[in-house]
Amino acid sequence: MSKQGILTVVSGFSGSGKGTIMKRLLEKYPQNYALSVSATTRAPRPGEEEGREYFFKSVECFEQMIKDDALLEYARYVNNYYGTPKDYVLGQMAQGKDVILEIEIQGALKIKQKYPDTVLLFVTPPSFAELEKRLVGRGTETPEVIRDRLRRAGEESLGVENYDYLVINDELEACVDQVHAILQNEHTKVSRKIDFINDFKLQLEQYAKGEN
Amino acid sequence: MSKQGILTVVSGFSGSGKGTIMKRLLEKYPQNYALSVSATTRAPRPGEEEGREYFFKSVECFEQMIKDDALLEYARYVNNYYGTPKDYVLGQMAQGKDVILEIEIQGALKIKQKYPDTVLLFVTPPSFAELEKRLVGRGTETPEVIRDRLRRAGEESLGVENYDYLVINDELEACVDQVHAILQNEHTKVSRKIDFINDFKLQLEQYAKGEN
Repeated sequence: MSKQGILTVVSGFSGSGKGTIMKRLLEKYPQNYALSVSATTRAPRPGEEEGREYFFKSVECFEQMIKDDALLEYARYVNNYYGTPKDYVLGQMAQGKDVILEIEIQGALKIKQKYPDTVLLFVTPPSFAELEKRLVGRGTETPEVIRDRLRRAGEESLGVENYDYLVINDELEACVDQVHAILQNEHTKVSRKIDFINDFKLQLEQYAKGEN
Repeated sequence: MSKQGILTVVSGFSGSGKGTIMKRLLEKYPQNYALSVSATTRAPRPGEEEGREYFFKSVECFEQMIKDDALLEYARYVNNYYGTPKDYVLGQMAQGKDVILEIEIQGALKIKQKYPDTVLLFVTPPSFAELEKRLVGRGTETPEVIRDRLRRAGEESLGVENYDYLVINDELEACVDQVHAILQNEHTKVSRKIDFINDFKLQLEQYAKGEN
């Protein structure tokens, strides 16, 4: 297959609906996309399945993956490791699938540094008022919880200036189609068509030589 | 209107069909786009209309525009000046229209240097063989003419590596829709949403301050 897949990282505020968008995108275009599954050392929760929510690893095994450079990025939260296994992502890309990774900004920027062709997408509600509304939820949360969520939203957007696209999630289907259009168009970037261009130029040169 | 238009330069091989694509794009989405009209010192040809094909200028007038920095770019071919009047382009962009400019690569790269937000699109037939076929035309051209055209194609693609998008013109309507999708998606670039992001961040900060 000649088409190389694109690695895309999707981040966004809690309450932005990014998980739902990704799920719908894969349902709608299963032949185009693959979802990356993270590895973690935390224990599975009831209902979670190996290889679906996470690949569950022992600490020893995870640290071996770090040593082997087998992770695109990893981080430690609250005594647990979380990371992105490299093999699966690169394998799917080689098969022409665009691989979608849902992680936060700091991890995404690390990946972009190593793989500059990565596309970074940030999902946001249409306005601050709408974010507040979604975080307040059904009005059953305490003001402290809401304040915490909004403080976390501030942290979740640190570094967003370095992202490629800002996707405003107003209406789900429109948003899914927009993400799909963005990724399809990314394939028409000149930087991703260098082989086509070089081949074309070579033929123009050969023609000029052969005929003159 | 809060949306700022995008400046787009479309270049491509003679025979790539770029003129037809642009014409169709404007027919299909007249509310989104405006076509930039060049100024020139060459004499109008029969059927050409002032302000439609070109703005026809005297040499004195054109040189005054150069002095006044009233052109986005200009060049001299065969004793005639050709250039892009700045006023019209920037005015349309301020009104939220995406302005499309059809010029060759060297002029486009000059514009991109001055206005880094400019989107550069190169239109190509799907293959070298197809370009050759189109340039050969109906078989009525001499081998010399065809050779000249292919040599010019080599020149027309010099610098294309610096472009943003490569659009393959296989089927007209699909190609028009692709150009439209590319330009619509460009509006979701983080670099074009800085006001939205800063406004959002300000509100998050104010909330954090007010509540703590």
